[in-house]
Amino acid sequence: IKKDDIEQFREQFFELHPYEQAQFYEKVTPPIRQKIYYYLSPQELAEVFQALEIDDDTYVEFLNEMDVSYAAAMLSEMNTDDVVDVFHELDDEDRTQYLTLMDDETAEEIHELMQYADYTAGAIMTTEYVSINENSTTRMAMNILRNEAPTAETIYYIFIMNMKKQLVGVISLRDLIVAGENVLIRDVMNERVVSVQASDDQEEVAQIMRDYNFLALPVIDEHKTLLGIITVDDIIDVIDEEAEDDYSKLAGISNFDNFEQGPFAAAKKRLPWLVMLLFLGMLTASLMAQFEDTLDAVAILAIFIPLISGTSGNSGTQALAVAVRGLATKDASNDESKMRLLLRELSTGAIMGLLCALVVTGIVYFWKGELIIGMLVGVAMCCSIIVATLAGSLIPLMMDRIGVDPAVASGPFITTLNDITSILIYLGLATAFIL
Amino acid sequence: IKKDDIEQFREQFFELHPYEQAQFYEKVTPPIRQKIYYYLSPQELAEVFQALEIDDDTYVEFLNEMDVSYAAAMLSEMNTDDVVDVFHELDDEDRTQYLTLMDDETAEEIHELMQYADYTAGAIMTTEYVSINENSTTRMAMNILRNEAPTAETIYYIFIMNMKKQLVGVISLRDLIVAGENVLIRDVMNERVVSVQASDDQEEVAQIMRDYNFLALPVIDEHKTLLGIITVDDIIDVIDEEAEDDYSKLAGISNFDNFEQGPFAAAKKRLPWLVMLLFLGMLTASLMAQFEDTLDAVAILAIFIPLISGTSGNSGTQALAVAVRGLATKDASNDESKMRLLLRELSTGAIMGLLCALVVTGIVYFWKGELIIGMLVGVAMCCSIIVATLAGSLIPLMMDRIGVDPAVASGPFITTLNDITSILIYLGLATAFIL
Repeated sequence: IKKDDIEQFREQFFELHPYEQAQFYEKVTPPIRQKIYYYLSPQELAEVFQALEIDDDTYVEFLNEMDVSYAAAMLSEMNTDDVVDVFHELDDEDRTQYLTLMDDETAEEIHELMQYADYTAGAIMTTEYVSINENSTTRMAMNILRNEAPTAETIYYIFIMNMKKQLVGVISLRDLIVAGENVLIRDVMNERVVSVQASDDQEEVAQIMRDYNFLALPVIDEHKTLLGIITVDDIIDVIDEEAEDDYSKLAGISNFDNFEQGPFAAAKKRLPWLVMLLFLGMLTASLMAQFEDTLDAVAILAIFIPLISGTSGNSGTQALAVAVRGLATKDASNDESKMRLLLRELSTGAIMGLLCALVVTGIVYFWKGELIIGMLVGVAMCCSIIVATLAGSLIPLMMDRIGVDPAVASGPFITTLNDITSILIYLGLATAFIL
Repeated sequence: IKKDDIEQFREQFFELHPYEQAQFYEKVTPPIRQKIYYYLSPQELAEVFQALEIDDDTYVEFLNEMDVSYAAAMLSEMNTDDVVDVFHELDDEDRTQYLTLMDDETAEEIHELMQYADYTAGAIMTTEYVSINENSTTRMAMNILRNEAPTAETIYYIFIMNMKKQLVGVISLRDLIVAGENVLIRDVMNERVVSVQASDDQEEVAQIMRDYNFLALPVIDEHKTLLGIITVDDIIDVIDEEAEDDYSKLAGISNFDNFEQGPFAAAKKRLPWLVMLLFLGMLTASLMAQFEDTLDAVAILAIFIPLISGTSGNSGTQALAVAVRGLATKDASNDESKMRLLLRELSTGAIMGLLCALVVTGIVYFWKGELIIGMLVGVAMCCSIIVATLAGSLIPLMMDRIGVDPAVASGPFITTLNDITSILIYLGLATAFIL
C-alpha cells in the first residue's frame, strides 16, 4: 500500500472506512503522510482527519506537516464541531492564520462556535444541519436532502423554520418518507421540538439524548433561532468523557495517563493528589501523637487501627460512589430528595456499623480473649462507619449544592478524611474508658 | 389529562414524545393505567412500553395489571430486543403463556433471541431490520423502506443479501438518496460491511460503534447469515452499564442501590464487600500483633502507620484505575504491551515513592527531631508505594490474562491488600533496624 502509484493507492484507500483510513494515516511515517497530502484532495483528507482519535498535541503536529493553504482548505471542509476541537489546541497565531485563509462564512461560523464555554451544548454542536421553511412541501424537502446529503452531518432530521427563522418543528427522514410526496411540511412536522440552549451543560444534553433516543438534538438561542445541532456520536464521546472523569476522580487522578506515556509523565499526573493526601495524612499522624500516652500504655490498641480506619474508609467510598452517581443521574435533584438521601445513608450506615461491630467484637473476644478491647473496637467501628457513610454522601451533596462538581470529592480524599475521624473516635474512646 | 373523554385523552397523549408518554404512564396510579389500557390499542401501548426506563420488577408489575391477551398483543408489537429484556424478568410460566398467545413467527424469534448469553451481541440485537437482495434497484429499496418505516427499528441502513441469504453489503439511506433511482443496489452498496458475531462481548460491539460512528451494526452467524442488528441507542445503554460497572467496582459495591431503595436494601448491597474486607483487615491486625513487642518498645512508631498505609493505598488505587481503564480501552492487549506497562508502573512507583519519602522524612525530622524514625518512615513509604503501584497494575493484568474482568479487583480490595504489605514492610524494617 506504500507504492508510488497514485491510482492504486487511492483505489485501495477508498475501500477503507473513514475510521480505518484515519488509523492508517495516523500509523504511517511522516514521509508517507507527505505522500498522502499529495495524493488526496483537502476535501478527501477532511473526512480522514475528522475520524482521527488522537492526542490533542498530535493534531497540531499533523497540521504543521501540511502546507498552510492545504491545511486551511482541509479545515474548511471539516464539520465545524471538529474544526473547533482542533482549533482549541492551536495557539492564537496559527488559528488566525488558518481563519484568514478559510472562506469568510466558514471562518465566521467557527469564530462564533469558539466563543462557547467548554462542556456546554454550544461547544459540541455543529452548524452542518438541514433546515427548511414550514411552507415547503415534502418533495422540496427530499430535494434539499439530496443536495445536502454529501456535506450535512446528519440528514436524518430536517429542522423546520418559520418566516422569522425561528425553529418551529422537526421531521425525521423516516416520517418524511412515510408522509409521501407533495404534502405541506407544516402539516406533517412534529411541533413539539425538544431543544437545548447553547449554554446548557453537555451532561444535561447527554441525558436528554439518552431519554428520548434521538439521533440529533437542535441547539437554539433565546429567540428560538436554530444555532446548530448535536449528533449522537458526539454525545457518545460526552458520555465516555464524563464516565472517565467520575472514574478517575474516584481513584484520585486528575487526568488519565495513557499507557504510551513515560513514568515521569504518569508520576506527574498522580503526584499532586498523592502529596496533597500525604499532608492530610500527616494530620492523622499528629492527631495520633496526641494519644501517644494511651498507645504507650496499651500497645495492643494500635493493632486495630488499620482495621477500623480501613473499614470506615471502605464504607465512605461506597457511600461516595452512590451519591456521585445519583447526582449525575439526577435521582436527587431537589432539596427534599437530598435530605431523604442523607437520612437513608445515616440508617444504612447504622445498619452496617452495628453488624460490623458485632462481627469484630466477636472476633477480638475469641481471638485475644479481650472483651473490653473487643467492645471498644466494636463501638469505635460502628461510630466510624456511620460517620464515614454520612460524610461520603454529605460532602458530594454539599458540593453539588454550591455548584461544584460532586465528583471532585475523590475517593482517596474521603478515605483520608475518614482515617482522621475514625482514629479520633477510636483513640478518644480508648483514652476515656480504658485509661 | 385524567378526564374520562377518550378522544381528548388520545389527542393530548399523542402530542407527547414516546419518552414523555412513558414517564406519564409510569407515574400515574394503577386505576388510571387501567384506563390507558382501555384507551390505547396494544400497538400504541407497545411504543410507550419500550420507552420505559424502570426497574426490572416494575415491568412485571405493569404486565400483571393488563389482561393477558392484551399484554401478549402488546409484546408482539414491541421491538424484539425490548421484549427479550422484559422476558428475562418473567418466570417460566408467564413467559410460556405469553409466547403461546403471540403469533408463531414472533414467538419463534423471541425464543431464539432468549438463547444468547447475557452481555453478548446476540442478547442486545433486534430482528426488525430492513434487508433487500443485491439484484434489486434503488427504487425497489425505497419502496421497501416506505413499507417497513413504521415497524423497523432503524431504516437508515439497508442490509443487502445475496441469493444464499448471506450478508454481502450495506447501504445507508443517505447514500441511497444520493445514488438516485433505478440503479442496481449491487453497484452502489458498500461491500466492506463491518459486522459482529452473536457471541461477541457487548463491550467490543460498543467499541466498534464508537470507532466507526455507526448508527447500527449487523450481527451475523458463521455462515454470514444476518441474525439481527444492534442500534446506537442500545449501545448507549451498554456504555452506561459498563461505566457504572467499572465505577461501582472501584468503590467496592456489587451493584448500585438507587436512591429510592430503603436503607436495608442499600446495606444488603454494600455489606458483602464490607464484611469480606473486614476479614481481610483482620489479617492486618493479626500481622501487627506479631509486632506487638516492637510497638510496645517504640510507641511513636504506631502514629505513622495510617500515613504509610494510606499513601500506599492511594497510589495503589491510582495504578488500579489506570490499568482497568487501559484494559477496557484495549491500550494493552498483547503481552508485550502488558510487560511494558508493568515496567512503566514500577518506574512510576519508584519516582513517586522517592519523592514522598523525601517529603515525609523531612517532615518527621523537623517536627519530631527524629532523624532515624524519619528515615525509617521514608524508606517504608517508598517501598510501600512501589509495591502498591505494582500490585495495582499487576493484579488487574493477571485477571485479564486468565479471562476474568479486571474490574473485579476493586479499589477497597487493593487498598486492604496494600495495608497489609505496607505494615509488614514498615514494622519489619523497624524491628530489624531499631530494636
